[in-house]
Order: sequence, then structure tokens, then C-alpha cells
Amino acid sequence: MEDKGKRTELGEVGEFGLIDIIKDTVTQRNESTIKGIGDDAAVIDAGDKYMVLSSDMLVEQIHFDLSYFPLKHLGYKSVAVNVSDIAAMNAIPKQITVSIAVSNRFSVEAIEELYVGIAHACEAYKVDLVGGDTTSSTAGLVISITAIGEVAKQEIVYRSTAQENDILCVTGDLGAAYLGLQMLKREKEVFMANPEMQPELKDYEYLMQRHLKPHARMDVIHELKDLKIVPTSMIDISDGLASELLHISKSSGLGLDVFTQELPINNETLNAAMELSLDPITCAINGGEDFELLFTIKQSDYDKIKNHPEITLIGHMTKAGEKSNLVMKSGTAVPLTAQGWKHF
Amino acid sequence: MEDKGKRTELGEVGEFGLIDIIKDTVTQRNESTIKGIGDDAAVIDAGDKYMVLSSDMLVEQIHFDLSYFPLKHLGYKSVAVNVSDIAAMNAIPKQITVSIAVSNRFSVEAIEELYVGIAHACEAYKVDLVGGDTTSSTAGLVISITAIGEVAKQEIVYRSTAQENDILCVTGDLGAAYLGLQMLKREKEVFMANPEMQPELKDYEYLMQRHLKPHARMDVIHELKDLKIVPTSMIDISDGLASELLHISKSSGLGLDVFTQELPINNETLNAAMELSLDPITCAINGGEDFELLFTIKQSDYDKIKNHPEITLIGHMTKAGEKSNLVMKSGTAVPLTAQGWKHF
Repeated sequence: MEDKGKRTELGEVGEFGLIDIIKDTVTQRNESTIKGIGDDAAVIDAGDKYMVLSSDMLVEQIHFDLSYFPLKHLGYKSVAVNVSDIAAMNAIPKQITVSIAVSNRFSVEAIEELYVGIAHACEAYKVDLVGGDTTSSTAGLVISITAIGEVAKQEIVYRSTAQENDILCVTGDLGAAYLGLQMLKREKEVFMANPEMQPELKDYEYLMQRHLKPHARMDVIHELKDLKIVPTSMIDISDGLASELLHISKSSGLGLDVFTQELPINNETLNAAMELSLDPITCAINGGEDFELLFTIKQSDYDKIKNHPEITLIGHMTKAGEKSNLVMKSGTAVPLTAQGWKHF
Repeated sequence: MEDKGKRTELGEVGEFGLIDIIKDTVTQRNESTIKGIGDDAAVIDAGDKYMVLSSDMLVEQIHFDLSYFPLKHLGYKSVAVNVSDIAAMNAIPKQITVSIAVSNRFSVEAIEELYVGIAHACEAYKVDLVGGDTTSSTAGLVISITAIGEVAKQEIVYRSTAQENDILCVTGDLGAAYLGLQMLKREKEVFMANPEMQPELKDYEYLMQRHLKPHARMDVIHELKDLKIVPTSMIDISDGLASELLHISKSSGLGLDVFTQELPINNETLNAAMELSLDPITCAINGGEDFELLFTIKQSDYDKIKNHPEITLIGHMTKAGEKSNLVMKSGTAVPLTAQGWKHF
């Protein structure tokens, strides 16, 4: 079934390497294709506006563990994750398609739960579920969602268009989703060892919710429009802040400095990190799945945004040829490295 | 993880039953959503034209067996299947996203093969691969594709708009893909029993190709436009002619008569059916995966189409309240029943 010659393991190239290989097979031939692979969403010319298009796939045991992930939350999260990609283009989501593969281990009622969660997210983000596919699976549950959004042509935002001296901004706080997951995993282990033990999660409700029911930051997208700010670049934080910073830096061809003491970290995140003997800064930088927005603005937009409770200024873009640095409280600069997802 | 109350097995409701349950969770709230679940593709108002959107998911061991399905062909077929849905709306495909889940049983070279096949199909159908997702899988390969197409508003065609006395037309021939699959399965069994045996497939190359590398009938869509024919209804034949006829009949609220002696069946299909002791008419009606188009035209368009080598007139729509009948050579009418896919 496979190649007879050379065999390279997927683990050797990783997800980003595989995407580069896929990119090399691609030719764009339609004028309406404005942007293909390489941003949070593809951009299609629809006449007087752009449509943006993003697809994500969630696989049981890779992206979620149903022993602690309620199906209703999973449905909600699947939509939120895609809406977040649409938000990252500064676009407004409008439609989604949902395809699922399910084994007969799932009941009809379980699948209904999943779709009730999807419907809740559709309501929250004002999105219509317009199609998809349902099929059986030999193993677990696979959910594939495609979201479509629209945006005025002059308001589209890419990750590759940050300018020197632009201010780096992040919404909400970081690291909480990762620590929520760690807490859930710990409680699962405790439960497996002793099913009589009650889970001790009441101190970490915010963290749980960040992992189980993340929000796409459409609120911020609407507020930026109200403030008449068009970010100069934007990306959503799905793989971790470090990874996304490097995407902006690399695709914009600039360096950047981010200051660790400016990173927004919730108190629950700090407490959980301490309890688990993890470094909260590392969790904030490499945690992933926060689904916050990372964006750059012109210095001239600083006054409009400086006191916004949901937006934190964490650094700025530097010159082409400069590194991407994490600047410690001591002033020491450490070059950023991305962990990203290493599923393979 | 699942419901604590009633448990209904997926097999009890089947795929169409599950889709009905999903539909009940859906609310449409955006004006740009012209058509949601219930046709070959969703329809979105993009200003001066419509965009159509369709998603399909292909799962290893459910939809394909890699022991006889080359990955390059699989890539091609995955795209063709989606393009066929776009064709069924009388639209022109423009972009696709491809999401895959793969286990580490696959090499990088194997995934490249898959994407080379996808690239071939993109070239054949003039479609751009603009995005998607890549993730790992605990089990086999899952491919999820979303296709986008566009169509002038006055040329969109639904499955629900056939009119009384309209002529039923089908493209190409029927049953070949199903018999191709049966032949491949038989040869696999022979090979498993005795790996020294050479496969005897040379008499059935057309059938193999129909299963392994189906074509979406964009050629017919372009010809219909040239002939200035807008079908009154249309659907692609993925689940089998009977199933698709019932979709047109039910959604248009009319009966129909289809004449078995008019069904286009290739000689190889007839020979293979004989060799496997199968009824060729049953194969043509319930076989599935032909990816031909089934459509209706006004009687006044009959002259434009009657001698077209790739289009066969197989029957006509009858009144509301009439049954959907298969009319035998003897004149006996048998009510149609659909098998469709029973994956669960």
C-alpha cells in the first residue's frame, strides 16, 4: 500500500514539516483564490467582499479524552476552535459544516449531545450549521469542521503583515487551558487508582472551563471594529504563544521582543502551576489551546487600546534580521523556540 | 461519557435518520444562508452570486481498503467525490480544504502520494487546495474534504424542484463502480488464500477504474450550460440510483417512473454481474459510488439532449401523490426502495 523506496517517518518531519511538503504539491489556478495554505484561514474573493475558510479536525485520544470531556462541551469547543480561526482573519463567521465519524460504541443520544453543544456554539457565535457528513468509524470519534466567514476587503488581516515597531497585543490570559488539562489528567489518574476518591477540582473551575469550553474572541473582533482599529497582523493562539509569535515573526520577516513580566496569567493558573511544580511562564508560552488572539497594532493606535481590560500589550516588533526574544524581568533576552503540537 | 438514560443504537436510525435528528438541532440565523442541510451542498449568498459548500469524510476500512486502493487514487477520488456534489448544484468548483488524520503506520512518502493524487484531481477540475488540517490518528486514515463552488443565482439547481412530466436523465452508465469493488474484493480473497495467484482483472479495467478513480461530471455541467439547459432538479449518484431518485421524488413532492430497459449499463458491468451471479439491474439501481448526475429537464429541452452520447433518458416525473416506480420491460411497476449506505 505504501512506497517501496525510501521511508521517512512522520515524526521526523513533524506537523509543520508535513504542511510544507503538502504546500509543495499545490498550484493555485483560480483568480478568486487570494490566500491559500499558510494563514489561519484561506481567503476567497467573493466579489465585493472576501470570504474566509478554515478547517480543523479533532480526533479522539489525540485532541480529547471522553472520560473527562463531556460531549456537549466537545461540540461547543469544536465550533469555537474554528470560529477562532475566522476571528484571526478579522472576519465574521457565518456558516459551518460538521462532518463526524463515529463508532457504534456511541448511542444516538450521545451524538445528539454533541450536536446540542454544536448548536449552543452556533448560537453564541451567530453561525449556521449548513451541512457536513456522517459516517461510521472503526475506532473512535473524529470531528471535522469547516467554518466560513466574511470580511470587507480592506479589513482582512494576515499573520504576515506586521511592521517594525508595531505593538504586540494578546487578549485574555494565557496558560489556563493547558493547566486545566493537566488538572483533569491528574484527577483521572487519581480516579483510576481509587474510584472512591472525589475529584478535587473546585479550586480550578476557571482552568477546567478554559480547557473544556474555550471561547473564540469574537467580542474583541467586534470591539476592534468599534475602535476603528485594523490590526496590522493577527493569529489565534492554538499551539501556544511561542509558536504563534514565531509565525508572525517569520512570515512578517521581522524580529520581536516579548516581555515575560507583561504576560497575562490568571491567579488560578499561577496556583495550579505551583501545585503541579510547573513554571507558569512556560505554561503561558507553550501551553496551547488558549484560543486567545495575538495581534499587532500601529503605535498610533496605542491610546485607543491601552486601558482595555481584555487586551494586554506584551512587546513589540523589531527590525528584519533581529531574533524573536523573550525578555526576562532581569533584562536577559532568550531566543524563542516553539514546541507546537508534536502529535506524530 | 455518554447519556445515562435511554440508549438508542445508531444502527436503529441509520444515516438518514441521524441526519434528521441533527437537522432538528439546527437554527438558521444568517440571511446569507440560502440553503442548509438537505441538498448536495449548502448555498450561501455571496452578493452577486451564490457560493455552494459541501463536505465529505472518507474513513479507512469503511470507505476504502488500502490493500487494493492506491493512495494516489484515493487522493484523486476524495476530491472527485466533493466536486461531484458541487456539480450536482450546477455550480463550478473553485477551492477545497483537505483535513487528514493519519497514524504513524504511514510514511511521509505515503502521504505525499495521497497529495499527488489530490493535486491531479485539483488540476483536472481546476480547483485550488487552499487549506485544511493535518493530525495524527490512533487508528487508520481519515480524509475530510470541503469543496466550495460558485454559480450564478439564476442557475442554482436543487434536488427539490422537479416538476410534473419533467424528463429524468442520467449521465454515463450505472453499476460499474459497485462491480469494480466486488471484483477487487474477490481478487483480494483469492490473493489472501494464495499469494502466488495473479489477479485476474484485465477484463475489468473499466470497472476497476470506475471504483478507484471516479470522475465528477463537470464535463456535463459545462455542456448543459453551452446547450442553455438549466436542469429543473439535480443530484449526484453517490448512494445508488434508487436512493437518489427517492430524494428527488420526496423533496419535490412528486412520483416518478423509471424504465429498467432504459438504464445505461456498460458491457463489462453486464459480464461481471454474470460472472458474480448478480442481477445487473440491481447493481445499476443500488450499486452506489457511480458519481454520475441524475437530473430532470423540461419536456421542451428534450430535443437539445436526445442524442447526447453521455446522457440517457430513463423516465419521467409523475403527479404528486403518485409512487416512485421502477417499470420493468414487462410493464410491471415495482415501488422503488433505497438501500443507501448502512455503515452503522
